[in-house]
Amino acid sequence: MAAKLPAASDFTETTVSSELVYDGGLLKVRRDAVRLPDGHDAWREYIVHPGAVMMLAFKSDDTILLERQFRYPKHRHFIELPAGKLEAGEAPLNTAKRELVEECGYEARQWWKIATIDPSIGYSTEVIHLYGARDLHHVGAKLDAGEHLETFEAKIEDALQWVKEGVITDTKTTFGLLWWDKWGRFPE
Amino acid sequence: MAAKLPAASDFTETTVSSELVYDGGLLKVRRDAVRLPDGHDAWREYIVHPGAVMMLAFKSDDTILLERQFRYPKHRHFIELPAGKLEAGEAPLNTAKRELVEECGYEARQWWKIATIDPSIGYSTEVIHLYGARDLHHVGAKLDAGEHLETFEAKIEDALQWVKEGVITDTKTTFGLLWWDKWGRFPE
Repeated sequence: MAAKLPAASDFTETTVSSELVYDGGLLKVRRDAVRLPDGHDAWREYIVHPGAVMMLAFKSDDTILLERQFRYPKHRHFIELPAGKLEAGEAPLNTAKRELVEECGYEARQWWKIATIDPSIGYSTEVIHLYGARDLHHVGAKLDAGEHLETFEAKIEDALQWVKEGVITDTKTTFGLLWWDKWGRFPE
Repeated sequence: MAAKLPAASDFTETTVSSELVYDGGLLKVRRDAVRLPDGHDAWREYIVHPGAVMMLAFKSDDTILLERQFRYPKHRHFIELPAGKLEAGEAPLNTAKRELVEECGYEARQWWKIATIDPSIGYSTEVIHLYGARDLHHVGAKLDAGEHLETFEAKIEDALQWVKEGVITDTKTTFGLLWWDKWGRFPE
C-alpha cells in the first residue's frame, strides 16, 4: 500500500475557445485560449492524437518480440516494442491485435492489459495502452505501404541491458520493459 | 554484457525537401518530402523540439522531489519529476540547474548524468536528459508567469507504488523512477 498523496491545490485551466490551427496529414495542432487558476488569460498549443497501443508479445516466458525501424524525426533507427495508433472508433485491444499481425505477423491466443501511460503530457493528448500477448502463432506480416521495419526476438534480460546501455532509448519501450521486470506476472 | 543486436537492415529515409508548415508560439511543425529505402517518395510531419531535462533531486538517499501540475492537453493534474525545456544555446546541465531553482526552489551541490531518452520518436525530435542532483539547499522557487505547480517530497518506494497503481503515468517520470530503482547508484 503506497503512501497517500499530499494535499493538493487545484491548478485547473479552463477552456475559453479552441481552434484547429494546423490540420496535417499526420499531425493536428490545436491552440486554445484558456483561463489560468489565478484568473489570467493564456494560450495552450497541443497535438490532438488518436491514442496508441504497444505490446509485450511473448514468444516464451523470457523472450519477446522487438522491432527495429527508422524514425525520421530523429534520423536514426530505434528498437521498440511493437506499437501502433488507434484508427477512428477502434477499441485499443483491437488495435493491438491488428498491429501485432500487420507489423510482426503474429496472432496471440491470450491477451491482457498491463498499464496505461501518457508519453508527452506537455504538448500531446496521446495515451498509450500496454498489453501483454501470449501463445503466439505466425500468420505472416502485412506491412502498410511505406512502412519498413523488421521484427526480431530478444530475451527480456538482454533488452533490459540495452536500456541500461542506452541502446534502447524509446521511452514507451523502456517503460514496458522496466514495468514487466519489476511487476510482471502472467495471468492465470 | 548484453547480447549482440541481430544483423540489421538499413531503412534510412533521406530528406528531399523540408518545410516549416506551422510556426506557433510553442510548437513548430515541419513537413518533409523524403525518399524511402525502397525508392518511393513519401512525407513525414514532426514537431521540432529544443530538447528537455528532468531531474532526480534527492532530499535524502530514499526521498526525491516531485511536482504536481495541471497539463492542459490531458485536462488533468499529473505527478512528475521536475523537468523543463532547453532555452536556445543552453547546455542541458545548465537547464537542469536553472529549472531546479525556478520550479522547486533548490540548488544542488552535486550533479550527475543518468540517462538520455527519446519520448515521442514517431512525431517529435524531443530528447530528454535525466540528471541526478544531491546535497540540496533551499533558495526559493521563481515560477514563470502563468506557471502553476507545487513541489513535494516523496519516498522513491512510494513513487514506484504510484507507478504500479497507475497514479503516476507520465512516461518520462516512470522511466526515471524505474531506472533508478533497478540501476541507480550515487556517484563517489
